[in-house]
Amino acid sequence: MQLMHSTDIALRTLIYLGQKQDSATIQEVADAFGIAKTHLMKVVMTLVAANLLSSERGRNGGIRLALDAKQISVGEVIRLMETNLALVVCMKEDVGNDICPLLPRCRLKKVLSKAQDAFFSSLNQSTLADILN
Amino acid sequence: MQLMHSTDIALRTLIYLGQKQDSATIQEVADAFGIAKTHLMKVVMTLVAANLLSSERGRNGGIRLALDAKQISVGEVIRLMETNLALVVCMKEDVGNDICPLLPRCRLKKVLSKAQDAFFSSLNQSTLADILN
Repeated sequence: MQLMHSTDIALRTLIYLGQKQDSATIQEVADAFGIAKTHLMKVVMTLVAANLLSSERGRNGGIRLALDAKQISVGEVIRLMETNLALVVCMKEDVGNDICPLLPRCRLKKVLSKAQDAFFSSLNQSTLADILN
Repeated sequence: MQLMHSTDIALRTLIYLGQKQDSATIQEVADAFGIAKTHLMKVVMTLVAANLLSSERGRNGGIRLALDAKQISVGEVIRLMETNLALVVCMKEDVGNDICPLLPRCRLKKVLSKAQDAFFSSLNQSTLADILN
């Protein structure tokens, strides 16, 4: 049970900027975590597109939080970044009901979905501000 | 956010045997899910060691549930099979507190651990019998 590496980086980038309370260059954040700048850039693009980060060009340019830390839900960040929320194969949307011999007499998907909802309900109660405090 | 393939197979093996209400050979279960017999054998060994399955040798041998389906907690099966519950890097037990520049002013681990507890609390309320019904 792991989150994607991109999700981990997204969370840490938001925390880094929240702690700094100022803008930072992508190179600075990449160096802080020892990760590839190209990888971080992809993550930053997703966060900018979701209006969680703003990006400024120029000499004093960089990235910064686009919202107050209290307005950034941890659950929303994770949902945004996790491109595959199918805990097991049969939870994938493109998997038909005819693929598994256990169906239709199997409620595994239902039980796991309920647990995943509990996971996100818990995360939705926390914001970036809670992580920073 | 995904569970390991071995966890998926463990759950489906238990469901298969619960639906069949009888023993099955490892080959039969492997064929049902189109997976390698060697991979399934490793999963079965873990489930037998945890007293969730019993294994019988001989002509009519095979594997069967060692407990009533009502006694098999879905949460316990998933905890047993998931060898890595570190959602992000800093949740790994062997990672020291000095690895991340965000520390000690970061509560990410705490927020994620709480959500993971909510995930397992939900799963602990369900047994194999709930999946079969």
